[in-house]
Amino acid sequence: MPKEIPLNLSLREKNDLTARENRKRFKDLGLRVLNMIGSPGSGKTAILEYTARKLGKKLAVIEGDVATTRDADRVRACGCQAVQIETGGGCHLNAEQVQKAFGQIDPAGVGVLIIENVGNLVCPAAWDLGEDAKVAVLSLPEGEEKPSKYPALFVRAQAVLITKIDLKAVLDYNLEQVKADCRKLNSQAAILELSAKTGEGMEGWLEYLTKLT
Amino acid sequence: MPKEIPLNLSLREKNDLTARENRKRFKDLGLRVLNMIGSPGSGKTAILEYTARKLGKKLAVIEGDVATTRDADRVRACGCQAVQIETGGGCHLNAEQVQKAFGQIDPAGVGVLIIENVGNLVCPAAWDLGEDAKVAVLSLPEGEEKPSKYPALFVRAQAVLITKIDLKAVLDYNLEQVKADCRKLNSQAAILELSAKTGEGMEGWLEYLTKLT
Repeated sequence: MPKEIPLNLSLREKNDLTARENRKRFKDLGLRVLNMIGSPGSGKTAILEYTARKLGKKLAVIEGDVATTRDADRVRACGCQAVQIETGGGCHLNAEQVQKAFGQIDPAGVGVLIIENVGNLVCPAAWDLGEDAKVAVLSLPEGEEKPSKYPALFVRAQAVLITKIDLKAVLDYNLEQVKADCRKLNSQAAILELSAKTGEGMEGWLEYLTKLT
Repeated sequence: MPKEIPLNLSLREKNDLTARENRKRFKDLGLRVLNMIGSPGSGKTAILEYTARKLGKKLAVIEGDVATTRDADRVRACGCQAVQIETGGGCHLNAEQVQKAFGQIDPAGVGVLIIENVGNLVCPAAWDLGEDAKVAVLSLPEGEEKPSKYPALFVRAQAVLITKIDLKAVLDYNLEQVKADCRKLNSQAAILELSAKTGEGMEGWLEYLTKLT
């Protein structure tokens, strides 16, 4: 809790202490926690809507956005608890924001907490929120070069979701190159191809979540 | 120049002083300068490739990326000067990086300089590089909510490029809502719809550039 943190720590050090508290609390509750990171419009919220429809109250979501509460409203409407953090200009979530938002969630019956970070491939990758794993979200229309150009996220991510796979037919997209680039940065990451729109590949994502819990 | 800047200034103040120097230098050279900002994969580089093919040596480009020199290589291959800044993790360009990169450009015959910022809808919006205008790039696959969710950029942008318009037929996209949201934030901004892939709307963009010079 903030009161226990000495005042002479850097912002990052304070964050990491709070992230450690979050991690302990999540573990004590038997919760598995994912930190979902991707560009604006990469399809993160659509995946969460789909997931909420399938998992219902077993899922809880913390939404991070620069402005608006739209994403939490969208996900809540699909049947799970969802709390919005509005960063008011901040380009990533921090552990204290997550700690406060989690205070509004009733953990009873929840198995998985997914934190949707601010839409940004750069800054969120460097901030620990107390999650078990970072999940990178990368949509087909963004092109093939994103893993090479934004390596910090892909090096750390334990799963890469390649989204909007339904657009494969209309986009000239080299899926194999993207997967090879991801593996070069991180040979351990699970790579899932999916479309929340058509449902293609979504069973693989749900299975990934089940294995976590 | 860095030497002239007192050491007790904040990073932001130093940046703004250097941005002012850049602005004066660009003005003295009769250059019009745009700071192009958009999500990763929103189509910024594709627009610059198209523009370089049309304007040739009248255009110069400074490319900002977290890693790789691919974008500068792509744009240079289309016939204009292009210099790459690799931020090494930095989530936005700053004025000093632009000043240094501009030192590698021969300004003779150049009328327009376009700075492609790091792919990020949040952080670059807040940093002045010495440009005449910020240009927001927003691609159809990112969805309709981006102006409302990332207002800082859209409030400041003097032009909004809605890109990948060729995907209109396959995406369920409410173009009128996006334009209305942009206008709510900024009634003065020019809004251009275009596709660098099919060339649709690109003459409007070239005309916008011509009017600048």
